[in-house]
Amino acid sequence: MAEWIAGVDIGGTTLSVGIVAAEGGRPRALRVDDTPSGGGPEEVVDMVCAMVRAAVDELARTEGPDATVAGVGVAAPGSLDRARGVVLESHNLGWFGLPLRDRVQAATGLPTVVENDANCAAYGEWWQGAGRGFRSVLGITLGTGIGGGIVMDGRPFAGATGAAGEIGHMTVEFGGRRCTCGGRGCLEPYASGPGIARAAVEGLAGGTRSTLPELVAGDLNRITAATVHQAAAGGDAYAAEVLARAAQMLAAGITGAVNLLGPEAVVVMGGVTAAGDLFFGPLAAELGRPRFRSALDACTVVPGALPGTAGVVGAAGVFRLRTDPARG
Amino acid sequence: MAEWIAGVDIGGTTLSVGIVAAEGGRPRALRVDDTPSGGGPEEVVDMVCAMVRAAVDELARTEGPDATVAGVGVAAPGSLDRARGVVLESHNLGWFGLPLRDRVQAATGLPTVVENDANCAAYGEWWQGAGRGFRSVLGITLGTGIGGGIVMDGRPFAGATGAAGEIGHMTVEFGGRRCTCGGRGCLEPYASGPGIARAAVEGLAGGTRSTLPELVAGDLNRITAATVHQAAAGGDAYAAEVLARAAQMLAAGITGAVNLLGPEAVVVMGGVTAAGDLFFGPLAAELGRPRFRSALDACTVVPGALPGTAGVVGAAGVFRLRTDPARG
Repeated sequence: MAEWIAGVDIGGTTLSVGIVAAEGGRPRALRVDDTPSGGGPEEVVDMVCAMVRAAVDELARTEGPDATVAGVGVAAPGSLDRARGVVLESHNLGWFGLPLRDRVQAATGLPTVVENDANCAAYGEWWQGAGRGFRSVLGITLGTGIGGGIVMDGRPFAGATGAAGEIGHMTVEFGGRRCTCGGRGCLEPYASGPGIARAAVEGLAGGTRSTLPELVAGDLNRITAATVHQAAAGGDAYAAEVLARAAQMLAAGITGAVNLLGPEAVVVMGGVTAAGDLFFGPLAAELGRPRFRSALDACTVVPGALPGTAGVVGAAGVFRLRTDPARG
Repeated sequence: MAEWIAGVDIGGTTLSVGIVAAEGGRPRALRVDDTPSGGGPEEVVDMVCAMVRAAVDELARTEGPDATVAGVGVAAPGSLDRARGVVLESHNLGWFGLPLRDRVQAATGLPTVVENDANCAAYGEWWQGAGRGFRSVLGITLGTGIGGGIVMDGRPFAGATGAAGEIGHMTVEFGGRRCTCGGRGCLEPYASGPGIARAAVEGLAGGTRSTLPELVAGDLNRITAATVHQAAAGGDAYAAEVLARAAQMLAAGITGAVNLLGPEAVVVMGGVTAAGDLFFGPLAAELGRPRFRSALDACTVVPGALPGTAGVVGAAGVFRLRTDPARG
């Protein structure tokens, strides 16, 4: 009788739920939906719990009624009180002091643990993805923001103060672009999805030749990082240059992070991985330029292997780790 | 009968040796000398061992013949094979593959351990200095270069690859100043001693009003970071601005490091601590500006409390930790 764990990834735009075998593997009964907005935390938590129950039911249908779901691992954004499973502060979702663990436990009847979403994604890649076999992994998720998670000796690492891994707010250009955090020159405004889109739009304002305006029917506000990938993949040199610049800024952030932390691997996740060589080519080229090498040479930088599911897999893995630490 | 440990700090310009009680406290029988150059590793190691023997003899005279020195902790620059006590690569000293532990053991007759100098300085401040009582400390030494050392849960942290802590080579200004490592925009060329001196000289080239030329009798090549402190302390607004700029760049590096690593404290060491408020004032002001705050607000940034001896104290502490881990 196999044992299973539900993994939940709560994002600002997307909710993902799947069931992962305790020994690992691809998530089953996967469901993805838009994060409801306007209804507050209750609506989101209700929807998450309904998705978990539906996934558990689906698993029973496909794996037989004996398939046991041991519990729920939840990947949540923001700062957490891990011991109590409380989301202290998530500006992304507008949650402050939400007792997420207790709510999910009550609604699903399953033991629940809560961990930071970026840490879950990094843990998922370490456990079942591109970070397998490395002793320590820095996971970087390029999305609406830039999330960073650290796995050290097989465990999520949150630092002494619980707030480690925030690579998006490393300064890479002193006095540079304004960041949503209020600072300047953070990595996030250069290499996040909106950062890439904004750089593309700003460059177009100068009358640059590009297929981008066509792709959005002239409405430049509709340009996203995905539009930039699409244009670059179609041979648009300007779009390729915008992507390359973002990759170069990420290389600067990775250099700093690797020199400080000395991980064996960096796993780059998020939508940008779909751009493939258009992004990872310039990233590798920039990392290969002259710079302080000892930590970089000892570190492997790879794209994530679990697009869309690293958080779900990692959340399930964190549940397994916390409830049966000997397995970690 | 008290037990003692010899601490050795091997720097590119200075050798320091002292004897530290196993329970801590100020180093005794302290001696400091210039690092001999030109004679290769042999000459340096011979001198270090002679200094250790002299310090042990002095201790016997002051503490009585029963004072037992249990061993030697050596702080060495560069990358290390800790298990074998070998300096793999120190560009600073020109040492490659030097079996430092065995040499010191043979010449002193005392068990010896070797640890990275920046880690020893951080460990010294954590054990006996400004980092006491914190669970994790990032130590930053501003000198000829910028060294970084991490203490986590009471132990030096070297990362999975043994190369962690190199905060001097975090990129803080993409495409900025050339660094000795070959890269651009690293923290080191902005906030190291030579970086501060160079910034001062470059600004003077424009005909800026300053007392600096006077202080070096017109020979601008003689300007060092200490000259800049001296001028600033004497009311030179230009020199104060140069120091403030270095402090601001350091703040950018600290922001990135703290966001990534989440330590409880950052201890800033090195000659620059002598500048006091002229440096730490602008540093605090810059750290207080709008930026991503959760990890920074949970972190204390302080000047080191063991000027000149953090490495000696830390090396002795690392010996104690490695030979009696229960004490750590």
